[in-house]
Amino acid sequence: MRNLRLVLSYDGTDFHGWQVQPNAVTVQGCLRKALEGILGGEVQLHGSGRTDAGAHALAQVANFKTASEIPADNLLQALNGRLPPSIRVRRADEAPLDFHARYRVLSKVYQYRVWTREICPPFLWRYVHHYTFPLDLEAVSRAATLFEGEHDFASFAASQGRKERSRPEKRSRTRRILRSEFRRRGASPMLIFEVQGTGFLHHMVRNMVGTLLEVGRGKLQPDDIPRILQARERPRAGPTVPAKGLVLVRVDY
Amino acid sequence: MRNLRLVLSYDGTDFHGWQVQPNAVTVQGCLRKALEGILGGEVQLHGSGRTDAGAHALAQVANFKTASEIPADNLLQALNGRLPPSIRVRRADEAPLDFHARYRVLSKVYQYRVWTREICPPFLWRYVHHYTFPLDLEAVSRAATLFEGEHDFASFAASQGRKERSRPEKRSRTRRILRSEFRRRGASPMLIFEVQGTGFLHHMVRNMVGTLLEVGRGKLQPDDIPRILQARERPRAGPTVPAKGLVLVRVDY
Repeated sequence: MRNLRLVLSYDGTDFHGWQVQPNAVTVQGCLRKALEGILGGEVQLHGSGRTDAGAHALAQVANFKTASEIPADNLLQALNGRLPPSIRVRRADEAPLDFHARYRVLSKVYQYRVWTREICPPFLWRYVHHYTFPLDLEAVSRAATLFEGEHDFASFAASQGRKERSRPEKRSRTRRILRSEFRRRGASPMLIFEVQGTGFLHHMVRNMVGTLLEVGRGKLQPDDIPRILQARERPRAGPTVPAKGLVLVRVDY
Repeated sequence: MRNLRLVLSYDGTDFHGWQVQPNAVTVQGCLRKALEGILGGEVQLHGSGRTDAGAHALAQVANFKTASEIPADNLLQALNGRLPPSIRVRRADEAPLDFHARYRVLSKVYQYRVWTREICPPFLWRYVHHYTFPLDLEAVSRAATLFEGEHDFASFAASQGRKERSRPEKRSRTRRILRSEFRRRGASPMLIFEVQGTGFLHHMVRNMVGTLLEVGRGKLQPDDIPRILQARERPRAGPTVPAKGLVLVRVDY
């Protein structure tokens, strides 16, 4: 038995997210179907975690076990031949048998992109949140760093998470954020929020960004971030910004 | 009566080209419908020229006449509110009454983009021709410049142009190319062919690029370019590369 690791990029625009769902086109579903077509049998495919419908990935990681002897490079080519151009396998290689794309994650890096100029170029609209309200970027930057450290992120979790509905017991919402920063290149109209953490709750990055934008327009102050964290109440934080601005940039093991 | 000039960007992926056609979604059709909705009457909309189905524009130019007194800035906002995000009006301003987006063109600049690395990023596939055959770039660059000057481009015209079918008389296929160059930034896997000319025949840029790629892979030599031009026979030139790599970059008046 071999354990193969895949690194994938995808444009999430046309997918209902990563995770297989009945009657919906998903990235995991497309990938599993392509793998099963090549390997000729059922495949258990594990991703590093879900990405939302419409969100993108530069380097999602997945793994699966197989008895097939197909060389990893041939598998990569065969997969890219079967997958739509909006999903590309960037790397395929052998992993230790105990590697697991979800359980072994040490941290993940996400970016969230905000386009601030009045006209959003037609080549960008799928990949950015278009937000033209004037922002105090210094306040946003200061607020962003206040997410760093270990916190209970209940205020930034999806209000009705899928897991919560089916499993009512209280699960820990404590996560550790290693790095959280808002930046722009020069005078670019593109703002980039980059966050690295040991794990993320459902909608957490999108809710963090929605809250930071409220700070930027003066409806909240940077000092409100620790208060919102302490409150552990979803309504205290800002709105959920659209998935299309979100990119899974890297997964570290 | 006023004459208004529009400058437009569009992602051509989801359109059947610029020109209005029955039962097909086109850029001109969407724009005209949006204009007529705002101005409340029929609009004669002139573009600088057609772009192919799937081809893109950074700055297509169009004009129309109207008795409406709507300020140009308000028109721009109203248009962008009605148009799909894949079409953006970048500028709207007053033009002299005798301005005509097609008849007054002095020159146009097109780019054609070729992605040469084995894996084409999922965020680029709509905007590049993916071509991984090894290329002699020096030969391609030399060949590209041989298009400069005034030539009969019959060998590079669509073999069955629409106009030719309906109007059998021989029309001039002579065009003047002011600049023609193939380049890449550093060691980037993206090759860019940029051409500026006083006018272009249907499929001309795509046939020029198809021929340059044949030079790059050694099936033709740079010196064949003048011979192919002189032959005035479409089969002598290379194949038509896909429209999705083509971008109308600028129109000069």
